[in-house]
Amino acid sequence: MRIALDAMGTDTAPAAEVAGAIEALRHATSGDVEVILVGDETLIRAELEGHHDVPAGIRIHHAPDRVWADDAPASVVRRKPESSIVVGLRLHKDGEADAFVSAGSTGAVMAASLFTLRPLPGVDRPPVGTLLPTAGDLCLLLDAGANIGCKPSHLVQFAHLGSAYMRDAMGRPNPRVGLLNIGEEPGKGDELTVETFGLLESDDGLNFIGNIEGRDIVRGECDVIVCDGFVGNILLKFYESVAGHILDLLRAELDAVEDSNVDLEHVFRVLDYAEYGGAPLLGLGGVSIICHGGSPPKAIHHALIVAARAVRSGLVKHSAEEFQT
Amino acid sequence: MRIALDAMGTDTAPAAEVAGAIEALRHATSGDVEVILVGDETLIRAELEGHHDVPAGIRIHHAPDRVWADDAPASVVRRKPESSIVVGLRLHKDGEADAFVSAGSTGAVMAASLFTLRPLPGVDRPPVGTLLPTAGDLCLLLDAGANIGCKPSHLVQFAHLGSAYMRDAMGRPNPRVGLLNIGEEPGKGDELTVETFGLLESDDGLNFIGNIEGRDIVRGECDVIVCDGFVGNILLKFYESVAGHILDLLRAELDAVEDSNVDLEHVFRVLDYAEYGGAPLLGLGGVSIICHGGSPPKAIHHALIVAARAVRSGLVKHSAEEFQT
Repeated sequence: MRIALDAMGTDTAPAAEVAGAIEALRHATSGDVEVILVGDETLIRAELEGHHDVPAGIRIHHAPDRVWADDAPASVVRRKPESSIVVGLRLHKDGEADAFVSAGSTGAVMAASLFTLRPLPGVDRPPVGTLLPTAGDLCLLLDAGANIGCKPSHLVQFAHLGSAYMRDAMGRPNPRVGLLNIGEEPGKGDELTVETFGLLESDDGLNFIGNIEGRDIVRGECDVIVCDGFVGNILLKFYESVAGHILDLLRAELDAVEDSNVDLEHVFRVLDYAEYGGAPLLGLGGVSIICHGGSPPKAIHHALIVAARAVRSGLVKHSAEEFQT
Repeated sequence: MRIALDAMGTDTAPAAEVAGAIEALRHATSGDVEVILVGDETLIRAELEGHHDVPAGIRIHHAPDRVWADDAPASVVRRKPESSIVVGLRLHKDGEADAFVSAGSTGAVMAASLFTLRPLPGVDRPPVGTLLPTAGDLCLLLDAGANIGCKPSHLVQFAHLGSAYMRDAMGRPNPRVGLLNIGEEPGKGDELTVETFGLLESDDGLNFIGNIEGRDIVRGECDVIVCDGFVGNILLKFYESVAGHILDLLRAELDAVEDSNVDLEHVFRVLDYAEYGGAPLLGLGGVSIICHGGSPPKAIHHALIVAARAVRSGLVKHSAEEFQT
């Protein structure tokens, strides 16, 4: 199993990527995992020299170019064919890697993944998922921003892709699917959600549990929540910022108390995206996972674990099977 | 100034209403405020007897009927004309009260307010606003769920109504208006937001500051955020539940620490909707404010303060002026 890791994606690249890859290999439960660091070979080598006991599974694949935040996502494949993103995805497509992980520009990774790995038959608009912390287990929200103006059939596809992901990458045997809406009853919502409700309800291949209101999300009674990318994107960004806002309030309060012996590490950890292993692009002919640009090594480490699990469990094959009739 | 308060709205009615009205009158800065408790006279009287030194400004207006959660909102005016909601709104319409406050069924209060107080000329779809706590000052999000499937012109109307409310009821001289969207640049978003952006930008009567992403909301750089009621409702309910979720995590953590001397009252207060005085229905020929069914006396108290401020400042007149060309 080989995972191509874009080494030039984070704000601290390639430092976080190199450290995350080393962490992942040290903690790997099986010895068959290799991480291919894709990017500027000189920079990566220099970074590796700062680490002791670099695990055997680390390799480097040189990519001379790099995608920056101001590069137009749609033209990255054409204009920057030797960038770490495009080279890494090509390795995956050509079978030299089994998955791709990047913390680079979200738009560029999405566009290049779509172009290189292609949608699976039956998938009209590949979605991006995001794992949200809840009072129960993590919940996959999709689409988190790749598709605006979805049709009901798209949301049904998201439900199937999300279910396959939660089964294969997260070990949930029978994922409960909810439809994000403004009321619990079947007739609630806008045209999109009313029609989607009917389609989801009559789909025997899904464990559909009904409408999910904004207040239900954190209860953790769902494994998969489907919605249009407009509301999904706003919700995702809002969640991250609200958590940060509340923790800031807390920190200010705790700083005012001397000798506070309250350990908030646990609370911070629950809300820390670094734990959750990136946002998967679903419905493609390959495994592509996007991390935050600000990812610390731990986040890269977790994304690599999730990618390995997705490969080992046969996510792409199972995703394709969701659309075979 | 007389405010009609539905005494039968909260889960603990009329206890929270009576206590909230007494609190509001005790703290009133001017002596001209009266609160008319609308509802079952016997129950209200019994509740009042449990309080010492009831202020002079408390009155009772008997309403024999009551709206329950399972009454269909749209038919409340016709089927329950003697309910506390319909009677209270009629007092306001007939000039016997200057504003109406209720913690009853949101849908019923909205429908009855719309029917009784009528939309102002130029207002197609009266919105409901909600005040969100941010790192800065409170921010009014509208529409919070009254209108699904809005057109660009509706969002522009919301911007005007929200601006008038923040000026008159919240004392913000030049309210900054943001458009909730999935990116900062003008061309971002769906059809609705792209077209709305152009209309807001060319409207000289607004202080439009551009697109606001999900992550910007808690920064508090806006006074008014406009959006369709679908995303507004999901966001609002999500915010309330996320705040509760994080505080639950914290409480569990703090309970595990003996002799913790951390005072989280401040944090809780920032996140406590009781402080914020209810959700105003805007664009009507009167002042109508909806509180949570679970409102404690403090929330009722604050809603009464906000209603009084809206009346005193001439909110309805100023709202109407926003649509005079």
